[in-house]
Order: sequence, then C-alpha cells, then structure tokens
Amino acid sequence: MVTSTYHVKGMTCGHCVNSVSAEVGAIPGVSDVQVDLATGQVTVTSESPLDTGTVRAAVDEAGYDLVEA
Amino acid sequence: MVTSTYHVKGMTCGHCVNSVSAEVGAIPGVSDVQVDLATGQVTVTSESPLDTGTVRAAVDEAGYDLVEA
Repeated sequence: MVTSTYHVKGMTCGHCVNSVSAEVGAIPGVSDVQVDLATGQVTVTSESPLDTGTVRAAVDEAGYDLVEA
Repeated sequence: MVTSTYHVKGMTCGHCVNSVSAEVGAIPGVSDVQVDLATGQVTVTSESPLDTGTVRAAVDEAGYDLVEA
C-alpha cells in the first residue's frame, strides 16, 4: 500500500469534503481517502503509486484545485 | 402566491445552497426557492403563507440556521 498526500484548495464545508472524497475515491486502486477541511490536506491510500495527473483530474472533476507541491 | 424572505447563516458553497433549496423546496405548498449564497437570503414562493417554524425545521434539517428576524 502507498500513502500520498496532496493539498486541495477551495473546499469550504463538509459537502466539499464529500465531493472530493467521492471523486478521488473512485480512482482505480484507491482504497482510502482522508480529507482535512481546515488544511485542505488530502491523504490517499492506494495499491500502487498514483499518477498526479489522475488525482488532479479527479479533484478538478469535483470542482476544486490541486495545489502544486 | 406568497413570497417570503428569510436569512440563513452558515452556507459556504454551492453544495450548501443545494441542501437548503432541497429541504425548503420539499415543504408542502412551496413552488420556488431562491438562495443568495453571498447574503444568505432565501426567497421562498408558496401557495399560502408559511409557518416560520416549518421553514426553520427545514433549514435545520439541511444543517444550517435560520437567523431570527
């Protein structure tokens, strides 16, 4: 298992957290997504390393932006 | 038709607007709900005057608070 951490901006409430969790959680191989609303930190657990572009696309689909590392 | 205006606090994003709109829109007799996220103003169109307690309960169900007039 691999754990990766990202930062997402624009989330303002629990609904936003749910949207990001649902989209990122739907990426193949992802087994867990933890979102910290206050910091925008998104911790993703997956079977193998994730492509950042794939994560960015999922976050974008939810309506938010992945902050560049 | 009657148009009533309320103020709701705690809405931070479009998801919040959707939640409030859905709950208030489900009150019997309500035909339209317009929510202004920036001001928290909720304008409700209904067949007859609404009981404020009913509106408050719907807003509460959505997870927000009706501001006392």
